[in-house]
Amino acid sequence: MTRLSDTVSVVLQPEGRRLRMRRGVTLLEGTQEAGVDLLATCGGVATCGRCRVRVLTRGVPVTSADARFFDQEELASGWRLACQLHVDRHLLVTIPEGTRAFDQKILEAGIAANVPLEPAVRRFRVQLPAPTLTDLASDLERLDAGLKGAGAESVTVPHALLQSLPQTLRAGEFHASATVVDGQLVELIPGEVSTAPHGVAVDIGTTTIVGMLLDLETGEELAVASATNPQVAYGDDVVSRINHARTHPDGLRTLQQAVVGCLNDIIGQLCRRARVRRRDIYEVVVVGNTTMAHLLLGVNPEFIAQAPYVGAWRSARTVGAREVGLRLHPRGQLTILPNIAGFVGSDTVGVILATRLLESERVELAIDIGTNGEIVLGSRGRLLCCSTAAGPAFEGARIRFGMRAAAGAIERVTFAEDVHCEVIGARSPLGMCGTGLIDAVAELLRVGVVDAGGRLRPPEEVGEVPEPIRRRVRRHSDGLIFLLVGREEGAPEDIYLTQRDVREVQLAKGALFAGIRTLERELGISDADISRVLLAGAFGNYIRRDMALRIGLLPALPVERVEFVGNSAGTGAKMALLSTGARSAAERISRTVEYVELAASADFQDTFAEAMLFPLG
Amino acid sequence: MTRLSDTVSVVLQPEGRRLRMRRGVTLLEGTQEAGVDLLATCGGVATCGRCRVRVLTRGVPVTSADARFFDQEELASGWRLACQLHVDRHLLVTIPEGTRAFDQKILEAGIAANVPLEPAVRRFRVQLPAPTLTDLASDLERLDAGLKGAGAESVTVPHALLQSLPQTLRAGEFHASATVVDGQLVELIPGEVSTAPHGVAVDIGTTTIVGMLLDLETGEELAVASATNPQVAYGDDVVSRINHARTHPDGLRTLQQAVVGCLNDIIGQLCRRARVRRRDIYEVVVVGNTTMAHLLLGVNPEFIAQAPYVGAWRSARTVGAREVGLRLHPRGQLTILPNIAGFVGSDTVGVILATRLLESERVELAIDIGTNGEIVLGSRGRLLCCSTAAGPAFEGARIRFGMRAAAGAIERVTFAEDVHCEVIGARSPLGMCGTGLIDAVAELLRVGVVDAGGRLRPPEEVGEVPEPIRRRVRRHSDGLIFLLVGREEGAPEDIYLTQRDVREVQLAKGALFAGIRTLERELGISDADISRVLLAGAFGNYIRRDMALRIGLLPALPVERVEFVGNSAGTGAKMALLSTGARSAAERISRTVEYVELAASADFQDTFAEAMLFPLG
Repeated sequence: MTRLSDTVSVVLQPEGRRLRMRRGVTLLEGTQEAGVDLLATCGGVATCGRCRVRVLTRGVPVTSADARFFDQEELASGWRLACQLHVDRHLLVTIPEGTRAFDQKILEAGIAANVPLEPAVRRFRVQLPAPTLTDLASDLERLDAGLKGAGAESVTVPHALLQSLPQTLRAGEFHASATVVDGQLVELIPGEVSTAPHGVAVDIGTTTIVGMLLDLETGEELAVASATNPQVAYGDDVVSRINHARTHPDGLRTLQQAVVGCLNDIIGQLCRRARVRRRDIYEVVVVGNTTMAHLLLGVNPEFIAQAPYVGAWRSARTVGAREVGLRLHPRGQLTILPNIAGFVGSDTVGVILATRLLESERVELAIDIGTNGEIVLGSRGRLLCCSTAAGPAFEGARIRFGMRAAAGAIERVTFAEDVHCEVIGARSPLGMCGTGLIDAVAELLRVGVVDAGGRLRPPEEVGEVPEPIRRRVRRHSDGLIFLLVGREEGAPEDIYLTQRDVREVQLAKGALFAGIRTLERELGISDADISRVLLAGAFGNYIRRDMALRIGLLPALPVERVEFVGNSAGTGAKMALLSTGARSAAERISRTVEYVELAASADFQDTFAEAMLFPLG
Repeated sequence: MTRLSDTVSVVLQPEGRRLRMRRGVTLLEGTQEAGVDLLATCGGVATCGRCRVRVLTRGVPVTSADARFFDQEELASGWRLACQLHVDRHLLVTIPEGTRAFDQKILEAGIAANVPLEPAVRRFRVQLPAPTLTDLASDLERLDAGLKGAGAESVTVPHALLQSLPQTLRAGEFHASATVVDGQLVELIPGEVSTAPHGVAVDIGTTTIVGMLLDLETGEELAVASATNPQVAYGDDVVSRINHARTHPDGLRTLQQAVVGCLNDIIGQLCRRARVRRRDIYEVVVVGNTTMAHLLLGVNPEFIAQAPYVGAWRSARTVGAREVGLRLHPRGQLTILPNIAGFVGSDTVGVILATRLLESERVELAIDIGTNGEIVLGSRGRLLCCSTAAGPAFEGARIRFGMRAAAGAIERVTFAEDVHCEVIGARSPLGMCGTGLIDAVAELLRVGVVDAGGRLRPPEEVGEVPEPIRRRVRRHSDGLIFLLVGREEGAPEDIYLTQRDVREVQLAKGALFAGIRTLERELGISDADISRVLLAGAFGNYIRRDMALRIGLLPALPVERVEFVGNSAGTGAKMALLSTGARSAAERISRTVEYVELAASADFQDTFAEAMLFPLG
């Protein structure tokens, strides 16, 4: 019988990683079990107060220990001790940098903290000498000299600020606070401004948008917020959105306004959570695939979808936030990191930046499985990338009972005497998400219900498997199927896998694997030369490595070589927000990493056909 | 008896020089008599057709010779042969470059033609390779490479043009015409655009604004237009305008809108005259004093008028034309050349640029007498400048019968047996302008009616002068006066000079002369070391050199060393419009030329008191 799981999911911010915890453990125990180490020098007895976390889910009770360590305001905004918090529901929890132990994986510990703090947004407090008959420099020269003395590079002053410059300087008796963005003065306030300038890093995914608010004088991450990309209403994947933009009057504008509206909402949430004013935000740094970037800037994306698939630009773009409708400081700016090609966007540049692949001495492989699958392979000597149409099946598209990783999705499948499914939200199953699909196929393969060619064997051909499992192979109006959860087991309807579903998995994993093979061949290496496989992105982070290896989604390597690197695209955006050096590195990545157009590779079709086979034994 | 003159004035464009000609001579003869040589290889018999000029005054008859050399359209727009045009009225005439003989003074021959043609505005026609699977550069990289191949430096592309870049490139099958201003793409049109981009050079004087339209691919000057600065309604001089801006709500905006409206009118006139569309104008380059520049940009000028008299900026400023309300190409720009100090503006930088003073091996002196008097003295080794409050008297202010050089102004005074006055517009005299004032004082000094101390002698003290002149010294309710034209001589009222008027002339010439002396002292030189005196500006150009020398307005030097250099501030603006090299030179001038603040000079008051004396005999 299928047992519905009694675990709850806890999503850790800022990286968005989801952990399954047994109901009732403390958050400290649960994270430790999952390999996420929090600081707790007292060992979890509520005396050191180091395991501070912020619970974003409302209604978590306050313990007496919490009341000792936090004031009313902090408690109201969700601060709790992880050692005192018993996990009895699904939680969204932010683990601040200071609470993480040092032996964390670098990405989860926040690579952001590891870049030198040299943001494009800087605030200078200057005291200028007043002009005299023997010091006749103009106001602008005076300000310029003061800013240079304070460490600014040459600063340009826009027309509107020049207009009020004489009064502003004299109103503060030549003492002023100047905010400079990318060498341009954006604000000049008489006297001393004590608050810090802020910035937001954003990862615009085809499906999900995540924003992170950072203090640009400390580098501290103050809040995280995310939302579904509202463009999903106009199509699930980039090609359907491009078609929408192309075929609907005002389609491009509609899509642009959708994403801009969503960013404004996210910025609003971030501001409320961290108690920061919108006008204290001076820059938004965005990563996203090339189509998302085009839609955000309102640039015609039509030709990305037509051979030879080129975008309108490659280098980073900066535009006045107001020009695209973003609501932050009126002279704030939007920066989109550089892309690599029409189908390899700044999100991949972010991944490479965050994982430092371009600095690696050894060959590494990074895979970012979103709606598309971007693959990066190589080392500092030569780094290649490509994009494959891997995603739709793993995101639920084209699968009979496919769905996104939402409540009701079967997200884990294991075979023992019978089939065992875990469902997100601990409720009746409605379908299966990507991880459940991979598990199911991997298990069917292991027990021999599916052969290496991907064929679903009819019940009479299935060999030694427990009877409850064999009975699930059935003939149906959809052809041969494998029943995962039947009505009689509590599902609202029979949920099953079809022969065609297995083929879709083969296509998806084949595309991904053929991409890896093509890059390997281009580099003249084999699987064994790959020292690490880094799985990035939301989906990549929930894959069970052994299952993925079993179906051949990943190269045949020891499972320890496969690492999860979380939302490293977003981490790349944060790094660029905090460091102009990281921005230059992103530009270098964009120009150095070689894009391999699979469509132009002579033997790609052969490789693809071969890659569709499942591994033997 | 005072004889009213029977000459007419002819104003030559583009330099704005005014010539007096005897009524009835041909324009060719008249210009030759004034030392302006036109080409006329046939000797003035209407066979060579070289002496082509464009008469901007309407209603000049067409001769049969004109009809042979010009088509209907040209005749309608004023083209005539100078050898056939009998001057019988006041005329405004443009002498095209091609009609001037080569031995012209360099400034009148148009220094503009002598700068290398390297404008900030350039149009590139490019044919780009279309993308293929083996050439995957983005559209922007493709355009950038094409522009670099065509000789452009690195070009930035604004947001709005990026948005339509994919369609634009494909609409012309990757053949496009790109207009670039200061390294920024401002227009991209599919296919080949044959027309040239244009620009306007403007000299914004406190009293008069002059605009010149240039073809930026040939350097040709196509039209000139001028107008009275409408800000005169708010005050005659810069200080009264600054006060208006400071004391009236919205005063600054009113003054800005006045000058911007006037520039838009001038641009409209230029476009009509040359048949050019406004949107074909991509840049306006402006010179003007520092206050005019502040008012044009809407920058608070308050502190220019308060010690220590500093402006808001010094280096050249560039702003979107649309941002200040100028109507030209929507992405066109306004550039204001750099100033030197609060009271030495970009107009003086223009004079130095046009006269190449900073390159001179020998010591030269340039004087630009407008409402203020700017003085530049030195050579390439060291060039000094200062500003003096010289102007108001010469522009008619504070003089009992002072007026501007308009119809009815006595503009020339000579003493023989009696007083002889010439009046602008050959009509009844209404007052006297600056040149008439200088003449009158110089003649009174020569005949001994005024002594070296500036005292007007009472009739009984006046020595050997013709009786008609002596009789003009009278006692009056205004004190001692000298009658220039009496009612009985046909004037609507008695027009006379008062003792106070003479004092005003002393103050003005004293200020100017003291400025020159202070600069000489700073350089350690004397009058004799000055190799040339260059008189610039509208007023300077009409001064009679001998008279100016006689009252000590200019250093005591042989008259041949004094040269008129016309509207060289405007010429400087044209040079900057045509040449980015000239722009860099202007920046160098702004940083290299030393400003001497007379108020800070210890012995300025002594020098000033001394300079107020008139030269002896």
